[in-house]
Amino acid sequence: MNQPPEHPLSTTPSHAAHNAAPYRSINFAEKFGLFQDQWRQKVLAQMNDYQFKLARLQGDFIWHEHAETDETFVVLEGQLRIDFQDGHVLVSAGEMYVVPKGVMHKPFAEQEVKLLLIEPCGTVNTGNAGGSRTVSSDEWI
Amino acid sequence: MNQPPEHPLSTTPSHAAHNAAPYRSINFAEKFGLFQDQWRQKVLAQMNDYQFKLARLQGDFIWHEHAETDETFVVLEGQLRIDFQDGHVLVSAGEMYVVPKGVMHKPFAEQEVKLLLIEPCGTVNTGNAGGSRTVSSDEWI
Repeated sequence: MNQPPEHPLSTTPSHAAHNAAPYRSINFAEKFGLFQDQWRQKVLAQMNDYQFKLARLQGDFIWHEHAETDETFVVLEGQLRIDFQDGHVLVSAGEMYVVPKGVMHKPFAEQEVKLLLIEPCGTVNTGNAGGSRTVSSDEWI
Repeated sequence: MNQPPEHPLSTTPSHAAHNAAPYRSINFAEKFGLFQDQWRQKVLAQMNDYQFKLARLQGDFIWHEHAETDETFVVLEGQLRIDFQDGHVLVSAGEMYVVPKGVMHKPFAEQEVKLLLIEPCGTVNTGNAGGSRTVSSDEWI
């Protein structure tokens, strides 16, 4: 996959002038059609030093925290459960949740859930925990 | 409206222990039911120093740019057109677009469109343009 330009999914006006269809929105369903693997988030877009990522999750993840950042989950399809040490939240399609930095959590989905994640560039999916479930935080789609 | 706490829509585990239903997702449809006014975005949630805002737009906005930040539009219902000086992009429900910083743009919607906006705290809706269409950038819902 090519290295993304600074604003890979939008174009500058000067670029636009040379291209018949230069401005394209990002369609979530179309992008989900490009990958089937679960637990491997794909970067869709960047806003300043934050990234928008799509993910398919099913089953249990590992307990982890992000010491330096909040993390936002927007559910596009299905239902996500985020377990905390003393409870959980259910997040369904059309809903979002922000996990505060430093809070231990574990995502879970009984059936596959499709998510939009928003977090700073370089945020690692397993946070402080590391291990075999860690994937690249910069795989663009 | 009360001043929002640091993480108004999530709770810390210590808080959670004293509350029967402490963890609540944010439901977009429920929040849209709380306001009908167009062009007055409402803050839903905060992630670090970024905010998630809901907005209802219809008709024409004004030309403006944000000199210091990109701005993200996620369309939840309807269709948004963002005009640029040399073209436009159509963003429909299930799609998003990131307007790069410093790019002049003008949102437009023929029918009411419902949006999720993501941008840094303090971002003013009219950017550099100011004027009568400017609204508070920190009205929580």
